[in-house]
Amino acid sequence: MIVKYMLNYSPRLDQVFPALADPTRRAMVERLSRGPASVSELARPLTMSLPAVLQHLQILESSGLVRSEKAGRVRTCQIEATALRTAEQWIADSRSRWEQQLDRLGAYLARKDDQPEHRRD
Amino acid sequence: MIVKYMLNYSPRLDQVFPALADPTRRAMVERLSRGPASVSELARPLTMSLPAVLQHLQILESSGLVRSEKAGRVRTCQIEATALRTAEQWIADSRSRWEQQLDRLGAYLARKDDQPEHRRD
Repeated sequence: MIVKYMLNYSPRLDQVFPALADPTRRAMVERLSRGPASVSELARPLTMSLPAVLQHLQILESSGLVRSEKAGRVRTCQIEATALRTAEQWIADSRSRWEQQLDRLGAYLARKDDQPEHRRD
Repeated sequence: MIVKYMLNYSPRLDQVFPALADPTRRAMVERLSRGPASVSELARPLTMSLPAVLQHLQILESSGLVRSEKAGRVRTCQIEATALRTAEQWIADSRSRWEQQLDRLGAYLARKDDQPEHRRD
């Protein structure tokens, strides 16, 4: 799909936002933000099967939000901050652009209030 | 679903992240971050039908990211910064918590390198 005004198009955002759209995956990211964890540590508080947890983990890994490494029989997962930063930056850019627009509008209205109206008599 | 370690659970995030998961809706948010727009202005650069655009708009409105008002025959849309801020804050919290973990680990490893090993002879 071609969107003419989508200047900062990033294929990574197309994976990161859908990955964060699910509350279980956000819970996994929150847990991992407190430190690396094995798959079973990640799964323990979740009320779902291990295959379901692994499927969520796979989506987090494809999005670049999480990476995991296997040492012996234990797979340890950790956050990849770059993907989080990309999403955070996109939101921050949109928000600050909009806030600047609001400030400009506010300043314009204030100027308009101060000036007497020019009449054409 | 109950997730024991999901302390900062927010129903808003459950709507905002899925809303941002679609590239067309992100393009609409980007456009609106540059200033309010009518539905037809929003639709113009998008290669899709007006009903499809309205469906995307409806998802953006339910998520709280966008609000619209009708004046006469024109519906004007604008950003609601609060929802953007909620999502930005969630990501920033996860990222900075993880970066603090990394800093702590780095400091621990540096201390360990400096200290001579205690031997039990």
